[in-house]
Amino acid sequence: MRVRLDLGYDGTTFSGWAKQPGLRTVEGVLEDSLRVLFRLDEPPGLTVAGRTDAGVHARGQVAHCDLPHDAWVTHGTPAEDRLRGLLPLDVRVTAIGVAPNGFDARFSALSRRYVYRLSDARSGVDPIRRKTIAWHRRPLDVTAMNEAAVLLLGEHDFAAFCKRRDGASTVRTLRQLEWTRRQDSVLEATVVADAFCHNMVRSLVGTCVAVGEDKHPASWAAGVLASAARSSAVRVMPPRGLTFEEVSYPRDSQLASRAIESRQFRG
Amino acid sequence: MRVRLDLGYDGTTFSGWAKQPGLRTVEGVLEDSLRVLFRLDEPPGLTVAGRTDAGVHARGQVAHCDLPHDAWVTHGTPAEDRLRGLLPLDVRVTAIGVAPNGFDARFSALSRRYVYRLSDARSGVDPIRRKTIAWHRRPLDVTAMNEAAVLLLGEHDFAAFCKRRDGASTVRTLRQLEWTRRQDSVLEATVVADAFCHNMVRSLVGTCVAVGEDKHPASWAAGVLASAARSSAVRVMPPRGLTFEEVSYPRDSQLASRAIESRQFRG
Repeated sequence: MRVRLDLGYDGTTFSGWAKQPGLRTVEGVLEDSLRVLFRLDEPPGLTVAGRTDAGVHARGQVAHCDLPHDAWVTHGTPAEDRLRGLLPLDVRVTAIGVAPNGFDARFSALSRRYVYRLSDARSGVDPIRRKTIAWHRRPLDVTAMNEAAVLLLGEHDFAAFCKRRDGASTVRTLRQLEWTRRQDSVLEATVVADAFCHNMVRSLVGTCVAVGEDKHPASWAAGVLASAARSSAVRVMPPRGLTFEEVSYPRDSQLASRAIESRQFRG
Repeated sequence: MRVRLDLGYDGTTFSGWAKQPGLRTVEGVLEDSLRVLFRLDEPPGLTVAGRTDAGVHARGQVAHCDLPHDAWVTHGTPAEDRLRGLLPLDVRVTAIGVAPNGFDARFSALSRRYVYRLSDARSGVDPIRRKTIAWHRRPLDVTAMNEAAVLLLGEHDFAAFCKRRDGASTVRTLRQLEWTRRQDSVLEATVVADAFCHNMVRSLVGTCVAVGEDKHPASWAAGVLASAARSSAVRVMPPRGLTFEEVSYPRDSQLASRAIESRQFRG
């Protein structure tokens, strides 16, 4: 039986999502709690919509795991309430329930949305929000950053922005990359794509920042994209500014057919 | 020569604003940095608009200190920039400059604005914002809370909501106390008064919360106020939910006359 979890976390003191021996990771902490909650002999394997790096935060993260059929019992108290008591304060499961037929937290996803937050205030970052906002010491030109951003939209090979994994495709469809200046000199980039490869959001943001501080003209971003190769000129921005905000799934009735398609496509 | 400082802080690991021997306080940290910045022999005395308790945060806090006339020199770099290098990341000075004639961070203030943030989400508080939002385990009725709140507005003796200090008046004018339900089950109370006595905001909020969880009818709040004596039925809410947001001052041209008035009034 498949269970869907909706969750968020403060990534500050996590070595990222993915389980690693000896390190505190979101997946590790969550698996430990689920093992206790469902009285399992082994931690259940988790599949997640967006594997986040060390220091990256999440609000609308989604994961799934498969449980033996008799494990899903409520013991009188809803599972959310019991999980709250088991999890540390920097992870929160907002919903847990039996997943609809054909649901896969990773492969059913239609798109992912990230937000990157960056302050160019001379005085530094608001202390209250400092763990989720990166600081940039030079003033940034948001108009130029948006001129660079539009050149990157669409379906492309994003190899120039990805930490390569052997054999994996780096073709993605970037649907939105848009900068807004908010109160208190905070700049927010909203970044939406069907999926992201490793380091992609933070490299896209770093490319726009290089343009925003007038190191390169906006057209430079198109050149980086076309090169399809990683370059040291593209800065991977610090993780603290990045939050995985949301993942979109098709309606339940379309999940099963999409699962078959996706298996054929990826197979 | 009087210097005005605009600042904010994450109160989580501070034992409040006021200097105390052996404890980490905002005043203590700030005085140490100012002593280095201005090459003073002694830490300068600070006067603040809102003395916050341990764990309470601030965004638009204002303080002043008096410096010897030759101390205010820029050393080539603006004072804000040099202060940023001296202060820890949980304190930020957004502006520092010579104060206008007659300015006093405390006595010139016309009003102070606090916001209290509280979540009644069953699943707990968003981990990313957990240090500035308190959690309440039972669902709260915002309409009832606002019914209680309006009964407390105006000029009253707020003794029932104040930790008594010998001889000090507890008469204050409460201009706003208003609850709004935001996204993700976060309730925000905006609280504005000419000034606040010790524990007053958190006690006002606690009174509304007792009504919001249906322990008392809204009219009970008026009874508490009229009693003019502290009662154990009024809960002082946890400090993490409280942020000092803003202080209002008169125009520079009116400061000097107000300073004389205030000196006469305070005796």
